[in-house]
Amino acid sequence: MSEQAKQRILSGMRPSGKLHLGHLHGVLENWKRLQDTYECFFLVADWHALTTSYECPQEIPANIDEMVLDWLAVGIDPERVTLFVQSDVKEHAELHLMLSMITPVSWLERNPTYKEQQQYLKEKDLATFGFLGYPVLQAADILLYKGQKVPVGVDQVPHIELTREITRRFNYLYRDVFPEPDALLAEVPKLPGLDGRKMSKSYGNSIFLSDSPDVVRKKLSTMITDVERPRMGDPGDPENRCIAFKLHQLYLAPEQLEVIVSECKAAKRGCAACKKELAEAIVLQMGPIQQRRKALAADSGTVRDILADGASRARKVAQSTMAQVWGALWNRNAK
Amino acid sequence: MSEQAKQRILSGMRPSGKLHLGHLHGVLENWKRLQDTYECFFLVADWHALTTSYECPQEIPANIDEMVLDWLAVGIDPERVTLFVQSDVKEHAELHLMLSMITPVSWLERNPTYKEQQQYLKEKDLATFGFLGYPVLQAADILLYKGQKVPVGVDQVPHIELTREITRRFNYLYRDVFPEPDALLAEVPKLPGLDGRKMSKSYGNSIFLSDSPDVVRKKLSTMITDVERPRMGDPGDPENRCIAFKLHQLYLAPEQLEVIVSECKAAKRGCAACKKELAEAIVLQMGPIQQRRKALAADSGTVRDILADGASRARKVAQSTMAQVWGALWNRNAK
Repeated sequence: MSEQAKQRILSGMRPSGKLHLGHLHGVLENWKRLQDTYECFFLVADWHALTTSYECPQEIPANIDEMVLDWLAVGIDPERVTLFVQSDVKEHAELHLMLSMITPVSWLERNPTYKEQQQYLKEKDLATFGFLGYPVLQAADILLYKGQKVPVGVDQVPHIELTREITRRFNYLYRDVFPEPDALLAEVPKLPGLDGRKMSKSYGNSIFLSDSPDVVRKKLSTMITDVERPRMGDPGDPENRCIAFKLHQLYLAPEQLEVIVSECKAAKRGCAACKKELAEAIVLQMGPIQQRRKALAADSGTVRDILADGASRARKVAQSTMAQVWGALWNRNAK
Repeated sequence: MSEQAKQRILSGMRPSGKLHLGHLHGVLENWKRLQDTYECFFLVADWHALTTSYECPQEIPANIDEMVLDWLAVGIDPERVTLFVQSDVKEHAELHLMLSMITPVSWLERNPTYKEQQQYLKEKDLATFGFLGYPVLQAADILLYKGQKVPVGVDQVPHIELTREITRRFNYLYRDVFPEPDALLAEVPKLPGLDGRKMSKSYGNSIFLSDSPDVVRKKLSTMITDVERPRMGDPGDPENRCIAFKLHQLYLAPEQLEVIVSECKAAKRGCAACKKELAEAIVLQMGPIQQRRKALAADSGTVRDILADGASRARKVAQSTMAQVWGALWNRNAK
């Protein structure tokens, strides 16, 4: 009975393939906390991937498998979470089409991401009807499960606001079917990559959850530290200037950090040794994740079965919602 | 085996409720001919109705029933034709979403109907994302069944051209899945209504297929004839000036028409008598249609069963097409 009292969370990720530490600390750690408190629906947003990757969709299926392996390996629990692929539940397309009827084009044109992304991804032709409509699809994703909370970063708040506007318009035109979802602002640490820029697959500066210990060690040895400390004999300033220290802070204990800070400031510790210590800490903590990942990957049917089961559970909820949507449209009872 | 050699036709009508003589002579007579020669899919376009009627969708279900009763009553044969409601086959929404990914917004903005209809239906707010995208939905309707021919009036040719463009783009980007559909230009006689304007439900100038004989007689007695012939003593010019004569030409035999023309020109025949003759001819020809309609309407389950059966047949084809679409996107074999 307490299950019913839990609020619903809807979240998702585009199938971008193997995940890195940025995803782990930015999203997955948050999801792990959320799955303890909320009824969670986590979806693989392959339709969303198509809005920008429609010219090369062939990579998407393999990327789905790799990403879901990472989700499971870090501890997203498919027993407690409904974990599924968006396109496996056709009701996403159905509610998207329905909501498109009541969404003014002007709401979509003024979406800040629309023009921004077109600028940012210049090499892609994003002036498509599907790309324009992706906030409608996002609204459908959330409303289909009557999501009450949506964990997002600050930059995603305008999209949730648009979902709320579409929700109010539906409820006003027809019947009170949907709760207005709230943004659940997550404090996302922007994890630096090896080169100091934000960790991102496209920058080639990432440590992947699936990287072997040797790869992790090798990658970390190239990581930027404190560029204003060219020689070991110079005193460093790890808290303010060292890039790698942001990772130290995530992976080492307070006592270890204290030693590092004092030794670095006193010019008694070299960066190479310091990064080795970090690498070992990361390797150690990634050990169990990688073991689980290996076990899961060994049986190619596991991910498939989990996603099929998740889709079937998601579909039940989605179909019940759509019955209510049609009931509201046709003014029939469908509760 | 010869069934397989038949070309596929996709056509549809918005569920506008009871149909009138304009629909009969403009669309349904054509469909009856087509069902003899082609493998036909005729759909009730309720999604399309929502693009313009999203503010008052409550009337749509009853309109579907009335319209399909008329289809069946005039002789559309649900054994030979796959007859179904668009929203009953979710793959329409699915393919619509997929095609939206590859359709440039500019193609839709330059669709002549988009601006025209917004002007024409000024009292409705049609600046919605769904209305902008209805040519994409139309493309999905056709391609889902790999329609090779689409019967249309001249004003619909730009939409078919847009479907062809979307088809070429899909086949070019992914794989050769869809045949390019051809417009099958139907010579549609523009049937005059009682007031001389085109027969249209919204003008209140229509004779419905379900009008009782007395209603038909009464309506026809008010029909405009030759406005330049105010008195019976004036000679008329039925072929060039009489509005009602356009109906005479559809419902009377050549010999009868000859008599009318000569008597009218010689001012020997009055319009009232002439329209009575027309009314009787229409009532006579509508008799069998109305009998069938009454029999069908007596059992409210009949239409429902026919539509359920049609949806199930349509779904099979649609699902097979979508498997090919996903196969093409993911670059997998799905033939």
